[in-house]
Amino acid sequence: MTGSLTRRSGSPVGLHRVLAPVGVLPQQAEVLDADPRPWPDEVVLDVRLLNLDAASFRQLRESHGTGAAVRAAVCEIVARRGKMQNPVTGSGGMLLGTVREVGPESPLGLTVGQRVATLVSLTLTPLRITDGLARWDGTTEQVPAEGTAVLFARSIAAVLPDDLPESLALSVLDVCGAPALTDRVVRRRTTPSVCVLGGGGKSGSLSLAAARAAGAGRLVALVPTEREAQAVRAAGLADDVVLADARDPVAVADAVGEPVDVTVVCVDVPGCEHGAILATASGGTVVFSSMATSFPAAALGAEGLAADVEMIIGNGYVPGHAEFALDLVRRNAGVRALFESRERHTPGS
Amino acid sequence: MTGSLTRRSGSPVGLHRVLAPVGVLPQQAEVLDADPRPWPDEVVLDVRLLNLDAASFRQLRESHGTGAAVRAAVCEIVARRGKMQNPVTGSGGMLLGTVREVGPESPLGLTVGQRVATLVSLTLTPLRITDGLARWDGTTEQVPAEGTAVLFARSIAAVLPDDLPESLALSVLDVCGAPALTDRVVRRRTTPSVCVLGGGGKSGSLSLAAARAAGAGRLVALVPTEREAQAVRAAGLADDVVLADARDPVAVADAVGEPVDVTVVCVDVPGCEHGAILATASGGTVVFSSMATSFPAAALGAEGLAADVEMIIGNGYVPGHAEFALDLVRRNAGVRALFESRERHTPGS
Repeated sequence: MTGSLTRRSGSPVGLHRVLAPVGVLPQQAEVLDADPRPWPDEVVLDVRLLNLDAASFRQLRESHGTGAAVRAAVCEIVARRGKMQNPVTGSGGMLLGTVREVGPESPLGLTVGQRVATLVSLTLTPLRITDGLARWDGTTEQVPAEGTAVLFARSIAAVLPDDLPESLALSVLDVCGAPALTDRVVRRRTTPSVCVLGGGGKSGSLSLAAARAAGAGRLVALVPTEREAQAVRAAGLADDVVLADARDPVAVADAVGEPVDVTVVCVDVPGCEHGAILATASGGTVVFSSMATSFPAAALGAEGLAADVEMIIGNGYVPGHAEFALDLVRRNAGVRALFESRERHTPGS
Repeated sequence: MTGSLTRRSGSPVGLHRVLAPVGVLPQQAEVLDADPRPWPDEVVLDVRLLNLDAASFRQLRESHGTGAAVRAAVCEIVARRGKMQNPVTGSGGMLLGTVREVGPESPLGLTVGQRVATLVSLTLTPLRITDGLARWDGTTEQVPAEGTAVLFARSIAAVLPDDLPESLALSVLDVCGAPALTDRVVRRRTTPSVCVLGGGGKSGSLSLAAARAAGAGRLVALVPTEREAQAVRAAGLADDVVLADARDPVAVADAVGEPVDVTVVCVDVPGCEHGAILATASGGTVVFSSMATSFPAAALGAEGLAADVEMIIGNGYVPGHAEFALDLVRRNAGVRALFESRERHTPGS
């Protein structure tokens, strides 16, 4: 710990780790300082697994194939940038590791030896790889790796639970922002009606369970196929399960019927903004939890429809979101069954 | 009125006016029915002026120049599509007109002869042009025109005030969503501190005035130049006027100092998301009123910064927004002076 004690306090958002260009945030930086000695408010992890963002992995595989070439490509990026941010896609991923050292001023509450998943993006995480990724064959988004990573004071890491399989926990942590935000929005009202677009998916099924636990009234799941509808019905997650293409506003409005107080969009395809707006009652709230959301489509759509709805950008960070989502899976057999079935049938989705 | 009385009731969002493809919303439609006979819940206007969206006008001018060629291009679009939606940019604009006929079931409260501005986009407004745009020379976004336009039950039109110059009123109506949403968000809290990024612009100065009227505590205007700072100071719109490039997150955070409870983004350039998030206190709210906002930049930025802020997509429609914004200008000499000075110095901005 002597190394860290001689330093002055770092920036909570990691500005002190930015090497170039100076003055930007770590996510915008070209190069980070990945030195594995913690500043006083930092935590350093021993890395065990990188989980590359799907878009990044696809680009790497298409450009470099598998085996030694793609290993070299990833190692080169990390060595040059001090982080695993794909320069083509701009995206990163997350990682699993074990707490190696905790700076004396770190506010994250972690202790040495804990197994954690980082919930901030690899695009802003200082990273060093020491094994040349020798155990990765380049065919999977999951990359076994040895090395070190740094968490800032304002980072987010979830301690992996002992009572859930690691793959299930990771799958849940990947989408833990949506149910926490759903909980918060639903609790502001008295038994509001709620519709989740994409209620059969990972974030969608968790959001349904969160809405129910938060006191939702009528609870509607909108799904694209009869097969998904059956799964959601079997899981008992909604009062009504309706079928429609979420990209077809008129079909969505018809399927939902009486407009709801809160709509949560969990469909990861573009073009769901107008259906969500039409499904929502005047004075209601739309939570956009999908990264495929278009800001102008939402803003202009609501204006064009003269829709007095509040539209919220799904912030992936809500305090306590990781534990909240894991608890939903522990307490709700239906959600857990959906996740486990999804893992068996559609790995990686 | 006989024509309209024989029809059954239309769709409040205008689905009955969509000719192709069937079943989509008017904004997504290729062709609308611009027949100037109102359905029972519609209003028909005599058109006086089209105000083309800046992006659309630029594209038309670059492709067709001025004079007869660009007149023919606009007439061709309107004749073919039944609306003035530029097929290249996808954008529209707004229009001025006079109420010609009111369907017996229209909920808009308009009466024949009123001068109105439409606050929904031309991209979804059924339009017919009857004068070949003979009075337009093709050099201005403002297009004198004769013809007819249709308002649906869920449309928005503002009656032009008699006590304000028309150009000032139009300039205010163009940005009336931001101050109304600012008012709503500020009133939810007790004397919250508020920062407006781009406080010297049209929507920014109105949002500052709205925040003050809604009971804001410390009120900060962030502007890019000393000249704008002087104008905002002279108008008395903020407690603190600070200078920074809104696209530089660290500079914004430094300039604002103590993070505020509510941040309103009124800067129409990309890249202001992270500065707005950093300027906002934990538990605070960011209102993105700029169309240049990127949904992923906001969502991933907040997550990467572990920022527990609520982020709202600036809906251009808030009930009463037009009258609210016009009243701010009437009651606030500082705002009015800023608008009038802007009209003199930078027409069209």
